[in-house]
Amino acid sequence: MTERRPTPDGVSAAAGRLTGHVTPTPLLPAKWRGRRFLIKAECLQQGGSFKLRGAMNRLLRLSEEERRRGVVAFSSGNHAQGVAIAANRLGIEAVIVMPADAPAVKREATAAAGASIVLYDRHRESREEIAARLAAERGSVLVPSFDDVDVIEGQGSVGIEIREQLGGAPDKVVVPCGGGGLSAGIALALPEAEIQIVEPAGWDDMARSLDLGRIVPVGDDPPDTRCDALQTKLVSPLTFEVLRAGGGRGMSVSESDVEEAMMFAMRHLRLVLEPGGAVALAAALTGAVGELTERSVVVVSGGNVDPLLYAGMLSRAGR
Amino acid sequence: MTERRPTPDGVSAAAGRLTGHVTPTPLLPAKWRGRRFLIKAECLQQGGSFKLRGAMNRLLRLSEEERRRGVVAFSSGNHAQGVAIAANRLGIEAVIVMPADAPAVKREATAAAGASIVLYDRHRESREEIAARLAAERGSVLVPSFDDVDVIEGQGSVGIEIREQLGGAPDKVVVPCGGGGLSAGIALALPEAEIQIVEPAGWDDMARSLDLGRIVPVGDDPPDTRCDALQTKLVSPLTFEVLRAGGGRGMSVSESDVEEAMMFAMRHLRLVLEPGGAVALAAALTGAVGELTERSVVVVSGGNVDPLLYAGMLSRAGR
Repeated sequence: MTERRPTPDGVSAAAGRLTGHVTPTPLLPAKWRGRRFLIKAECLQQGGSFKLRGAMNRLLRLSEEERRRGVVAFSSGNHAQGVAIAANRLGIEAVIVMPADAPAVKREATAAAGASIVLYDRHRESREEIAARLAAERGSVLVPSFDDVDVIEGQGSVGIEIREQLGGAPDKVVVPCGGGGLSAGIALALPEAEIQIVEPAGWDDMARSLDLGRIVPVGDDPPDTRCDALQTKLVSPLTFEVLRAGGGRGMSVSESDVEEAMMFAMRHLRLVLEPGGAVALAAALTGAVGELTERSVVVVSGGNVDPLLYAGMLSRAGR
Repeated sequence: MTERRPTPDGVSAAAGRLTGHVTPTPLLPAKWRGRRFLIKAECLQQGGSFKLRGAMNRLLRLSEEERRRGVVAFSSGNHAQGVAIAANRLGIEAVIVMPADAPAVKREATAAAGASIVLYDRHRESREEIAARLAAERGSVLVPSFDDVDVIEGQGSVGIEIREQLGGAPDKVVVPCGGGGLSAGIALALPEAEIQIVEPAGWDDMARSLDLGRIVPVGDDPPDTRCDALQTKLVSPLTFEVLRAGGGRGMSVSESDVEEAMMFAMRHLRLVLEPGGAVALAAALTGAVGELTERSVVVVSGGNVDPLLYAGMLSRAGR
């Protein structure tokens, strides 16, 4: 039996399946140093990030029997909220394994959506093992944050929406990348577009993997980053293969580039972005992405930022 | 000759005229204490408020000759940006009369859109007189911020969009009110809906006027408010009559209610709101608006807030 792989048709089907279950997010015009481009504001998705799309698509495909046994997921926060909201909406029990140092806003919102939370020590324990054990004990389906065909195809509905809103394919899409679920889904939805993925400096394993033509992990001692949503140490063959086949290429941005992008979004777009959600915009503002046109789309993928961290950035920027 | 008045047909025509000139803004689901309702995120409009709609509608109706002579407007900031952006887009010169103490973000953005700015002292000079003199000198058309049929009908396109997005009329619309242009426009677009207008405490002249059945001004010594966008001391017969005929009623909210609404929007909607843009949401969160359903719409009308003011609120809220 051949392993199922994410496909353009699967993404189209996911987009149809998700209608009414996710919020269509706007395509907003932006301008910076005379260059005009478009922002896909996925931070306005329910749960504050695109993650509801993939989680909901996965959960909508569960059998009745699977729904009864509940789901388990592990996540630093955004996928946690996506799964929690989707499960709550469909009347499915959800247990989420989260690092003890995940932003409080993300833990609180996940709990508020009705999920049970199991915390673990990110430095000493393996969330994969904890989640696998919980799933086995409960007979639950494990919902991965990116290494899953249905999750990737669900995230790709962002690309289908972009095509509808633009009345055609964009010339370029710049996307934040953690495990690559969002970027791979969009690449499948928009094969005509150039796909550029952006990661935090020192966490650019997808960019390096695409350069090398094979998957390499993040280095042994990656730098601290405020992009908690993108701290993925190893991408998946599923996402990597889609991006590689589509000619995707990657780049990285500094923490200060990210902070500037968050402030740009606050002042000029009136959008609250979290650091990980702002990396593609950061690359657009530094010019690292090259030419941008009125048919180029920069995805801002999440907005779950700690209010005090945000206040500190605003104070520095306003001085 | 009968004076022209804003009409439902005029609003529909304006919505058609504005297609491609303004950004369709999303209708986002919100939940508070178990109540679900919808947010019309007009802070995502170009220029950071709904004001582009009315300004653009007015400017699109100028003759070639009028376009050549330019336009003049007075505004504390949001209408200024709306006129500046619309004029720039249509190749029309714009002079904007702004109070010297208008938020720096609004002055800068107005200038960045290419308008000339004339500052005046809000406590000693009359902006109406300054603007009228400038318009007379230059032979320019004055674009009022709310006392104008085309401006009101343009703002009403928000209501047409809501109807399209909902697939029908909402049961209730809660709207911030300064001069009443936005709320009157929406009332014309959505005659089936209950319209509730919200003003800052001590600035609730429209609410009192609707109660009394005749226009009364703001009291002599109104309190300080951070809702600079809503500091209108006297509404217009044009807007008042529409709201009165539609059975609109009003209420007011405190400065602390407004601050809480801004923080709610930051955390749960990932939207940056300015104080004046958050008053309707504030009334929704306090419960003052009464019942809200999944077909009730709360308009958040602007997001041009000073970053340091915003940082201060976030710091207080995060403590």
